[in-house]
Amino acid sequence: MAKMNYPDFKFTITHRDPKTKARVGLLETPHGTIETPNFIFCGTKAALKGVTTAQAKEAGVDIILSNTYHLLLQPGGKIVEAHGGLHRFMGWEGPMLTDSGGFQIFSLGHGSVAGEIKGRRSTPWGKSTLKITEEGAIFRSYLDGQKVFLTPERAMQTQRELGADLVLVLDECTPFHSDKAYTERSMHLSHRWEKRSLAEFARTHTGKQALYGIVQGGVYPDLRKESAQFVASEAFFGQAVGGSLGGDKDQMHEVVAMAAEHLHPERPTHLLGIGGLSDIVNGVTLGMDTFDCTHPTRLARHGGALIDPEFADGRPHLNLKNARFKEDLNPLDPTCTCPTCKQFTRSYIHHLIKAGELLSGQLLTLHNMAYMMKVARRIREGIKAASKVMG
Amino acid sequence: MAKMNYPDFKFTITHRDPKTKARVGLLETPHGTIETPNFIFCGTKAALKGVTTAQAKEAGVDIILSNTYHLLLQPGGKIVEAHGGLHRFMGWEGPMLTDSGGFQIFSLGHGSVAGEIKGRRSTPWGKSTLKITEEGAIFRSYLDGQKVFLTPERAMQTQRELGADLVLVLDECTPFHSDKAYTERSMHLSHRWEKRSLAEFARTHTGKQALYGIVQGGVYPDLRKESAQFVASEAFFGQAVGGSLGGDKDQMHEVVAMAAEHLHPERPTHLLGIGGLSDIVNGVTLGMDTFDCTHPTRLARHGGALIDPEFADGRPHLNLKNARFKEDLNPLDPTCTCPTCKQFTRSYIHHLIKAGELLSGQLLTLHNMAYMMKVARRIREGIKAASKVMG
Repeated sequence: MAKMNYPDFKFTITHRDPKTKARVGLLETPHGTIETPNFIFCGTKAALKGVTTAQAKEAGVDIILSNTYHLLLQPGGKIVEAHGGLHRFMGWEGPMLTDSGGFQIFSLGHGSVAGEIKGRRSTPWGKSTLKITEEGAIFRSYLDGQKVFLTPERAMQTQRELGADLVLVLDECTPFHSDKAYTERSMHLSHRWEKRSLAEFARTHTGKQALYGIVQGGVYPDLRKESAQFVASEAFFGQAVGGSLGGDKDQMHEVVAMAAEHLHPERPTHLLGIGGLSDIVNGVTLGMDTFDCTHPTRLARHGGALIDPEFADGRPHLNLKNARFKEDLNPLDPTCTCPTCKQFTRSYIHHLIKAGELLSGQLLTLHNMAYMMKVARRIREGIKAASKVMG
Repeated sequence: MAKMNYPDFKFTITHRDPKTKARVGLLETPHGTIETPNFIFCGTKAALKGVTTAQAKEAGVDIILSNTYHLLLQPGGKIVEAHGGLHRFMGWEGPMLTDSGGFQIFSLGHGSVAGEIKGRRSTPWGKSTLKITEEGAIFRSYLDGQKVFLTPERAMQTQRELGADLVLVLDECTPFHSDKAYTERSMHLSHRWEKRSLAEFARTHTGKQALYGIVQGGVYPDLRKESAQFVASEAFFGQAVGGSLGGDKDQMHEVVAMAAEHLHPERPTHLLGIGGLSDIVNGVTLGMDTFDCTHPTRLARHGGALIDPEFADGRPHLNLKNARFKEDLNPLDPTCTCPTCKQFTRSYIHHLIKAGELLSGQLLTLHNMAYMMKVARRIREGIKAASKVMG
């Protein structure tokens, strides 16, 4: 394994659950330290949809991400670099992650699971991934149809320009329906791209960014094992579980377990694109430290407030569009101390939705952010308590 | 003149410009004191479009308004009253004004000047004002087409439920094209409605709200004089200049001057629906104390940043959609200390607009709010300086 020093980064496991692989850790970056398990909120295009970074901070958010794919196309890495990086560009002083662009290229190129079922085309230009070669991937910009060539080297260079703390290797993200032969060939291609990503990262190493490898291998146990062992053997700071995690929650749990068994036991581990509450809890018990998903903020923009099921007739969220909230003078969540719950009633949020005021999405986003942070805090407290009990 | 006490309200003129009718005043309300001249921002449906009240406060906003017409239809006055009024409902602790609903009924009913020119229908149900009688106005709800009957008494009752500090009488707002005979009949109807508004207000007087009369009379000097004298003679706390102010800026200046000459000299005076910078300056010299307009916040949602013309090639705003801002690392306004200008570049705002991120509207709204407050502050400082010079 090639050596790589990450002097401004550190991951320290402070507590372990004696019964599972769950752990509490401190993830130190040049923009601050976060406690894990934690949730990373999506600021895809260098914006947390509808809320300012100052508001997100007030709601308790610790760490956010942006997507290299979107920023590569608009405004381009050079403009962000001219600002001194994403932190300055979008006004966020805490830790940040960027992905490599791979997921979007291939998810837009292959289409989503739902898209496959419904026969939906991904873009006005049809499948947007034009060609995958040993060298990289050629795809069409969803903005203007221009051809773009993304290589592992370019993915790293763009992430250097963006300047997030945590950065990801370029991988090919295989679709849900891939057979084992394709998944295996693709995984080996991803491994070669990961090595090239690492080499390019090493060549331009500043100490201010830390690289995560990505485990592929689809739903196949032997492939997940091989990929996890590969990622664990390379000089990455962290590791992420990506690719197809299966068709349902049970299979996802199995697939993450296959990878988790062979991951590096001391490195910070991210589960890509997963944010359902039960999925987070499951992931934590398998040793996952961080999670990201658009769900909490997207749900907010569609009128949904995350809330403990005991306050929502057993459901995981309230739908504030519902007429039953018209005269409900309670806060969204009676146990919540977020800016929205401190000031506003369910009746007011319902009114905003009925009146077509986008402020509803903003207020619900702030609540859902605070809620996810509360969930992460509870998970950490649970692990700490269990670790103390066992002494 | 019937007596009416407003013990929790006070308007004190502290400085006068020796050359014009411009003055600086302190307007005291149960929710705080503002200095005038000042600008009232529109929170039409109990929401400042796209920004929270906390953000508006941080941007320096002193006073906001909501529209009785919209809130009467959705969510209805009773729901707001159950919250303890608009302040609690929408989370605003400072002074607030509500209009009577008249302007929207008649502007939607008669259609706007632009709508008249373009032959535009105001609602899916055509002209929405169905009938104006001595008793009140019957109109169709823009939400569901239901018939609604608004009388001076109901306008006051709804404003009691809404609970704003400053409230307005119901008037008929005549359209731009009205001839003198119609304008005169309409003005006299408004005067009778204003008396009924005042009687209903007196009947339910709590001391926590203060009533403004409205001067009508269209573009006709003798009618404006008669109306201003009528309003000045009644037991209103404040007075507003409304109705058709003419077809262009020069005529508006003349019409406001006609009214101003006969208004009560010591009462706080509001110019309804006017917010262009030169119009505000003109209005101030005629003795107007407060102004409201959707322009600054609407402009923001369309990508416009208010800025002193010397920083914008002589124009009153920058259009951030323009590609020339793509790589512009300057803040919107180099002299501005608002949260947006402290943190973000023109390039970032341009990127947000290009990327379809509504955050652009939010950040520009905060800047435009701060800008309008700066303009109001400069006007006050100018009057204070002039008053001192004259000793």
